[in-house]
This record gives sequence, C-alpha cells and structure tokens, in this order.
Amino acid sequence: MTAQERADKVLAGDVRAIARLMRDIDDGHPGWMEVLKLLYPYSGRSRIIGLTGSPGVGKSTLTDELVGLYRAQGKTVGVVAVDPTSPFSGGAILGDRIRMQRHAIDEGVFIRSLATRGHFGGITASTRGVVTVMEAMGKDVILVETVGVGQDEVEIVRMAQTTVIATVPGLGDDIQAIKAGILEAGDVFVVNKMDRDGAGRTVTELNNMLALSGGAEHRAGWEPPVLLTCALDGRGLGDLVEALEGHWAVLSADGGRLLKQRRREGARRELLDLIQTGVMKRLMDRLQDDEGLEAMVSEAVSGETDPYTLSQKVINLALNNE
Amino acid sequence: MTAQERADKVLAGDVRAIARLMRDIDDGHPGWMEVLKLLYPYSGRSRIIGLTGSPGVGKSTLTDELVGLYRAQGKTVGVVAVDPTSPFSGGAILGDRIRMQRHAIDEGVFIRSLATRGHFGGITASTRGVVTVMEAMGKDVILVETVGVGQDEVEIVRMAQTTVIATVPGLGDDIQAIKAGILEAGDVFVVNKMDRDGAGRTVTELNNMLALSGGAEHRAGWEPPVLLTCALDGRGLGDLVEALEGHWAVLSADGGRLLKQRRREGARRELLDLIQTGVMKRLMDRLQDDEGLEAMVSEAVSGETDPYTLSQKVINLALNNE
Repeated sequence: MTAQERADKVLAGDVRAIARLMRDIDDGHPGWMEVLKLLYPYSGRSRIIGLTGSPGVGKSTLTDELVGLYRAQGKTVGVVAVDPTSPFSGGAILGDRIRMQRHAIDEGVFIRSLATRGHFGGITASTRGVVTVMEAMGKDVILVETVGVGQDEVEIVRMAQTTVIATVPGLGDDIQAIKAGILEAGDVFVVNKMDRDGAGRTVTELNNMLALSGGAEHRAGWEPPVLLTCALDGRGLGDLVEALEGHWAVLSADGGRLLKQRRREGARRELLDLIQTGVMKRLMDRLQDDEGLEAMVSEAVSGETDPYTLSQKVINLALNNE
Repeated sequence: MTAQERADKVLAGDVRAIARLMRDIDDGHPGWMEVLKLLYPYSGRSRIIGLTGSPGVGKSTLTDELVGLYRAQGKTVGVVAVDPTSPFSGGAILGDRIRMQRHAIDEGVFIRSLATRGHFGGITASTRGVVTVMEAMGKDVILVETVGVGQDEVEIVRMAQTTVIATVPGLGDDIQAIKAGILEAGDVFVVNKMDRDGAGRTVTELNNMLALSGGAEHRAGWEPPVLLTCALDGRGLGDLVEALEGHWAVLSADGGRLLKQRRREGARRELLDLIQTGVMKRLMDRLQDDEGLEAMVSEAVSGETDPYTLSQKVINLALNNE
C-alpha cells in the first residue's frame, strides 16, 4: 500500500489502518513518516489537553471521567496514554487501561497506549506522531496522559495547549510532591482523592508554591486554579471542565495570539526532536554496521582511551562537512 | 589554568577545583571534557549505588542514613542528587538537600545536586560526569539519588552497580506504584515509612510483581529482597546495608564477571550518550547561527511544508558523507 493510500484510509476513519500506523510510529517502523507527511496538513485543529502527575494519583480515572464529560457534550475524543515501560523486555503494563473499557465500544473515543521503546528521543516523537494522527482523524479533544516527573514528561505536556497536573493529599514531603519544573508547566492543578487527610493543606501549599514559582510570562495572565476532585465518583470534575474552558478562552483571546505562539513553540520542538531522533538513528545504524561501536567500548573499558576522546572522533567523522 | 592543572587539583582533593568542574559539567560549559579525559583513568574503582523512587517516598532521608552507615564503616562517600528542575527558569529546588546538612562538615562526604538544564541528553551525561569526578576523588561509595519514573531515571540508575528502589505503603493503585521498567532495574526494594497502613500488603505486592517480572537474566541468580524501613529513625537500615553487601558479593563472584559486564554496558551507554549530546550541540549551534531554524519553523506552522520533510532535509545536509 502506498503512503497516500494509507493516509486516505486514516482520513476515512479506517480503524485498522489507524491502529497499524500508530503501531508503526511507536515501533519506529519505516514508512510512518511518509504517511504523517500527508496527514500533517489536517492537524492543528484539535484541542490538546495534557494530564500528568506522580504514579498513583488517579490520572487514568481522571482521564476516564473527562472522556465521559466531553462525550456528553457531543465531542469526539482521543486519548494517548504514555506508559513508561521496561527497557529490558519492552513489555507494557496495561493494567490501568482496563478501567477505560467503558469507552471501548464508543466509536467517538479512540484510545492508544504508548510504550517507551528506549530509542533516542523516542517517546516524545512517538507521542507527537500519534497526536497528529488523532488530529487528522478529526478528534475534537485529545487527552495526553503521562506519568510525570522527568524531562520526557515535561516535553510531552508541552505539546498540549492546556496542561492539568494532578496530585493527592499526603504524597509526602510537600516540596517533593510536585517539583518546580512540572509546576511551571501546569495550567490547572487537581488535588484528587479529596477525602484523604490533608487535602486542604495540599491545596494551600500548591497555591503558595504557585505564588512563588515562575512561569508567569508563559501563562500570560492566567492564574492556575487548584481544584479538589474525587475522580472515582466524579466530584469536582465539573469544576475541572469549567477551568479547562476558562483557560481555552484565555488562549483564544486576542485573535488566538497565545494559541499561535504555543503552536509555533510546538512546531520548533517537534522539528528539533525529529532531527535528533533521525540523526541518532542514522549514526547508530552506521556504528552497528561496521562493528565500530563494540571495538570502541573495548578501548574505553580497557583504559586504552576514554569515552570523551572516542565520542569526539565519532562526531567529527559524522559531521565532517563543518 | 590548563586541563592538566585542573585535573591535578581534583586528584589532590581541592574542593574549589572540584566544585568548579562539577558546575561546568552541569552547565555544559566548554572545557569540562578535557579535564574528564585526564580523570577517566582514575575512575572505575568506586562502588556506585543508585537510589530511586517516586516523589515523597523519603529518598533523601534514606540517602542520609546510608551516608551515616557507610561513614561509620570508615568509608568515604559521594552523593549525587539528581533533581528535576524547571525547564522554564532553570531554578533548582534544594529543600530536600537541607536535611543532608548533618554531613556538611564531614570531609569524608561530598554532596552535589544536579539540575536538568534541558539540553539534549543532558542530565544523564552530567550525572555520569559528576560520578566520574567522584570516582577520581577516590570516594569508596557513590550514592546516586534520583526521582524515578521516566526514561532519564532508568538511564541514570543503570550507571549504578546496585540499584535500590524505594516506595511507601498506600501510594495508590498497586500496579501504578512502581512501573515495570523501573521494577526490572531494581536489585533491592525498600518499603519506607513502614508504620503506615498497608506496609505488609505493599511488600507482598512487590514480591508478586517481582515474581512475574522479567530481568532474571540481568540479575544472574540474585533474588531482589523487599525490605521494610523507617528512614526517619533508622529501623531496617541495617538490613538494607546487609542486602547491598549481599548483592555486591553476587556481582563480585566468578572473578567479578558481572561487574565487568555492567562496566562494559555502562561504557557503551556513556559513549552513545556523549555522541548524542555532542552531535546535537553541534547541529543546534549551526542551525541557530544561520537562522535556519526559525525559517523552518515558520514553514511548518504556515503549512507550506511539514516538520518531517524539513527534518529529513536537515539530517541529509548534516550527514552528507553517507
């Protein structure tokens, strides 16, 4: 099948073609990029909402509730769930996806879990690719859910127009619960499992941290609210949707100036990511082909030379057109 | 000062020279690599222990206790604390470091916090560099503490010979508390804050997950223990040190075959990381110099072309010696 035929099938909503393309993206299988080139002009019209937080704060239950609320508004929804997976076996933990089954037979909802395959820059590039496919499918709202603390997660939430950061009361040391990097990336904060002890204190602490944190320029006047929710029974979810609408209104004001700015930042990051991933793939293929890598590793381990000198040699060889 | 003079000062234990070199590594400041080349032959003799876990499980208190126990054995200790920091402001949260102050005047302990500067592959390369400096300083034990769930953290713990994964009871959904990738990277498991409800259940669950998880080959017969601790008052810490000794014995058996294998894997990863970081830095410098990047971003945003086509153009230009 040509790339054009594959793209046409995706645009026509062919679920098998869509699933295959997403799998190819996640696996870094050749050919996906040619299809995405054809789908790219259909992207940029969906609302992308990121949801992140530490393990165990109830992210997938929150996502599940949001899907239900947006469906009730008649909107079509895509969900990209980014799971850190085993670098050793490549296996994904799908346990938390099982709860999303209630949407499994709803044709207006498309759910895709993504695994980290361990290739360079892989997870961010894969997530962007899958989001682009969902945009081309015409999904009104795309929820990107990721476990959040590392740099990867910050990159992933930055592809969203609005980022929700979830926590729970009693996660331990206040300052550790949400680190500064991820704090500044948040547009809306949620203290889930609101019936637990210390919920009010967690809200107060988050508000204090937000008052002290940077990111005001990035936010352009929007004051990130801190909401109490109970995803299990839906309490507070209405407030969350309302806050999301409020943030969207700020982004859309002034002819959508902020939206355009975020889109530009997103395109810049996507381009840099693709360059990084592509360059490293080509370099690695070359190194593995001529068995040069193992020979160099032996040199470093034996102490004959050091990895810094070796890396400079490889880089100079690779980029000799300077 | 020449690189040789700087390296000599580090080897002589000059704290100011050491601090400056570590800062240069963390900032990606030119010159650090030339000094590390000279220090590399002095590395490879320390015992490196990784400690990871979700925010709020008490990692820095555990680290603090381990430092005290190793000091009581007369060993010198280095601590590298990797903090995710703001991608917007670059500021680091140092709150949890304050508790380590009790070791601040002990000359046998060297503590360094590392921030993510957001540069490509930066945090892993920086952490490795700082560990190499501590090895050259002759530290007997080096503790690398990092907040763990993302791919970065898995990379960081893989530079350790023994990895401790910490959790607490009641972190929420069992399956989410420790994801598969990080589970398989663990050699010793700790359920900290053992007085909390559900500690026994968490131990059982971890044992069940370990029984089902992969990684057996990687472990070579070692059965990762799951220990209960209370870092605040030191309970269970003796068992932890004993487990670390046990794992060290397994690694050292058979003429240190496993240690050599881990060292080889580490050298391979370090080399690939250095190549990645170096190539991207050179590419970015070039792109920024000729203002090519912003022009390409405009092309992508306007829909004139797509980021995939653009990235392929850049890659082909960069690596035209194929």
